[in-house]
Amino acid sequence: MKFLNKQSPNFQSELQNLLAFETAQDPKIDQIVADICADVKQRGDEAVVAYTNKFDGTNAQSMADLTLSQDDLRAAFFRLPENVQNALKTAAQRIESYHQKQKQESWTYTDEDGTLLGQQITPLDRVGIYVPGGKAAYPSSVMMNAMPAHVAGVPEIIMVVPTPKGERNDIVLAAAYIAGVTQVYTIGGAQAIAALAYGTETVPQVDKITGPGNAYVAAAKRRVFGVVGIDMVAGPSEILVIADGSTPADWVAMDLFSQAEHDEIAQAILISTSKNYLDEVQNSMDKLIEEMPRRDIISASLNNRGAMILVDNLDEACEVANYIAPEHLELSVENSEQWAKKIRHAGAIFMGKFTSESLGDYCAGPNHVLPTSRTARFSSPLGTYDFQKRSSLIQVSEDGAQKLGKIASVLAHGEMLTAHARAAEMRLKD
Amino acid sequence: MKFLNKQSPNFQSELQNLLAFETAQDPKIDQIVADICADVKQRGDEAVVAYTNKFDGTNAQSMADLTLSQDDLRAAFFRLPENVQNALKTAAQRIESYHQKQKQESWTYTDEDGTLLGQQITPLDRVGIYVPGGKAAYPSSVMMNAMPAHVAGVPEIIMVVPTPKGERNDIVLAAAYIAGVTQVYTIGGAQAIAALAYGTETVPQVDKITGPGNAYVAAAKRRVFGVVGIDMVAGPSEILVIADGSTPADWVAMDLFSQAEHDEIAQAILISTSKNYLDEVQNSMDKLIEEMPRRDIISASLNNRGAMILVDNLDEACEVANYIAPEHLELSVENSEQWAKKIRHAGAIFMGKFTSESLGDYCAGPNHVLPTSRTARFSSPLGTYDFQKRSSLIQVSEDGAQKLGKIASVLAHGEMLTAHARAAEMRLKD
Repeated sequence: MKFLNKQSPNFQSELQNLLAFETAQDPKIDQIVADICADVKQRGDEAVVAYTNKFDGTNAQSMADLTLSQDDLRAAFFRLPENVQNALKTAAQRIESYHQKQKQESWTYTDEDGTLLGQQITPLDRVGIYVPGGKAAYPSSVMMNAMPAHVAGVPEIIMVVPTPKGERNDIVLAAAYIAGVTQVYTIGGAQAIAALAYGTETVPQVDKITGPGNAYVAAAKRRVFGVVGIDMVAGPSEILVIADGSTPADWVAMDLFSQAEHDEIAQAILISTSKNYLDEVQNSMDKLIEEMPRRDIISASLNNRGAMILVDNLDEACEVANYIAPEHLELSVENSEQWAKKIRHAGAIFMGKFTSESLGDYCAGPNHVLPTSRTARFSSPLGTYDFQKRSSLIQVSEDGAQKLGKIASVLAHGEMLTAHARAAEMRLKD
Repeated sequence: MKFLNKQSPNFQSELQNLLAFETAQDPKIDQIVADICADVKQRGDEAVVAYTNKFDGTNAQSMADLTLSQDDLRAAFFRLPENVQNALKTAAQRIESYHQKQKQESWTYTDEDGTLLGQQITPLDRVGIYVPGGKAAYPSSVMMNAMPAHVAGVPEIIMVVPTPKGERNDIVLAAAYIAGVTQVYTIGGAQAIAALAYGTETVPQVDKITGPGNAYVAAAKRRVFGVVGIDMVAGPSEILVIADGSTPADWVAMDLFSQAEHDEIAQAILISTSKNYLDEVQNSMDKLIEEMPRRDIISASLNNRGAMILVDNLDEACEVANYIAPEHLELSVENSEQWAKKIRHAGAIFMGKFTSESLGDYCAGPNHVLPTSRTARFSSPLGTYDFQKRSSLIQVSEDGAQKLGKIASVLAHGEMLTAHARAAEMRLKD
């Protein structure tokens, strides 16, 4: 891992280099995706079936072969060992209960002239959840995407998940079963995104698509954005741990590993006020790496993009954290609530030594879909609010129209928009 | 205007054709914008000054010549006639008061194990507001973009507005003065967007950019998205009026004009249950068009994209409205509150005959930046919430870590993520 010292005159540029990450879009991928999207838009089911057979090595005759029923999902759930069933159920309950608190309600008020103002809040009609297939199949991701839509009251939640060579993942289907998914198609890639965005004979057109995917899926989501809503296109996952030395070094070492094991380009950074503690965590990592099945990925990630940063005090640590605006921030310090108040930018803040980031990934309750690559400066975790939208409500009374009409008239004439002015003036009594 | 009948067997395809609008991105514009952005990123102020002199016909020596002080803004306000000052002030007060109601507050709760969960809500640090210059200079747009940022508590609100040939627009600067803008640069185009997104020696880097602009500005916003947040790239403005015949035909005619006068590609649609009433509105339009200074634009807009739709009853009208998901929806009907409840998708709903859309454009209170082109199916008016963001808060107690750790361990092993599992297991007492 790199070592940075906040007191170094080059610290700011070293930090910028550490965080730099180019997400250049590949024009070749873009072209392939453009062709697939155009084809699915035109030929519908036929194109989806053909691409699925080609890319996923399946042998489907029609979309019926790529459609799962609620019975299939239920059966998958009951095939799981009981401890896994229970873990999924408890996680789902906690996630549901947290996301209920995010639900927004319509509101109105009436001003002194009798004019009613407010916002009507409604769920989306129909959403699509993309779930990667194969090795990167994460049931937690199904729950984190589907549950907020379910809590928002979205009537139709359509999941797509590729099944390479026809292999279905029971735990993924079980997660869909308990997270309120209403329909599943076993399709993936750009063809699945296009099917959801444009609709086909079988797949109904959705209003928004969320969920992670590979470069083809990301390019397809970017392409259909505007036709449908999308969530953010995520960058590599990141953790920043701020430690004052009060948490066992082994615990912090494992928290850094848990980020690094995702991906060779994942980023794990540890900030401490104590050089000794940084050394201790390094020793823990050297010791613990051996027992990690994914040690090659972990080492590559930590060597490429990991870092330890020495600071003078926790105020400095918070300052650095606000610059980094990390996806995951562990405040592994005493009085973590106090320090959380100094954090302006972070996707999720894990407070205190018992709050390992992995608890948040699965079952604490909050969403694990979080802004990456410094976008926490301006964006938020995926939530119930992402599956609701607002319509302004305005009902001007006759009295209100007299007062507002005169103001609108002055301002509309100022903008040379005569019809705007006249529309307001016509409602005046005098 | 086109005439459609909901009972026609071709209605759905006719409606789709009516709404169809291609927003193809021009690769030439994209290339020019890419070059300007790269140049501003590299050369900073020098490039911004050069492009401004070239495109806006100015003669600036440095950014100092393109920077306005708070005194400049205040002076612009006090140069305005008193009735305009008062109209701006009253509009600002109403907009501020409505947007206060949208402000979101942090929340937390503690579960039975003593685990704290919640969301910490913070304003963005610094935002940029783009305001077009020249003829399309709209003070209302300044207020509708800056005020929600101001109410959200954004400490720095930076406005850019081009001043072609050095001409400043007092009413635009006055609107900035009363809407809480903290800094103004008289720059525009892609160079202004790049300056805000990357920062220069003079212009500080912002976290989000909102506000309307021409094709170059839209392309630049799309390009810098991800480095900073942006609002939606808006399509042509639209109004849908549902009328049961109880509103004077002249009023509805003028409401349709007020949309059509924006732009030749703006869209105005009237739905009614009465063919007679549709004819009356047509007669009103024929009569009123003569007194409109922008009659050429209005006629072009209504001929190209306007339509009247006859339906059997108001339930059908609401069904069509939900398909169109209009930016502006006037429910010019009796018992408009009842019918508003049947609307699932609309940017803003204007209820009752006194609520002309133009009142909402200027001073009713709600924002006039609204989702266009059917995106109200999944997005919302610009609001205070667009200038706030959320960080999840998780503080797991020692007891909570025992329960959650076991669940996370099961699920992490299910996903073959051993470090995730171990991080949870290390916090277990037994």
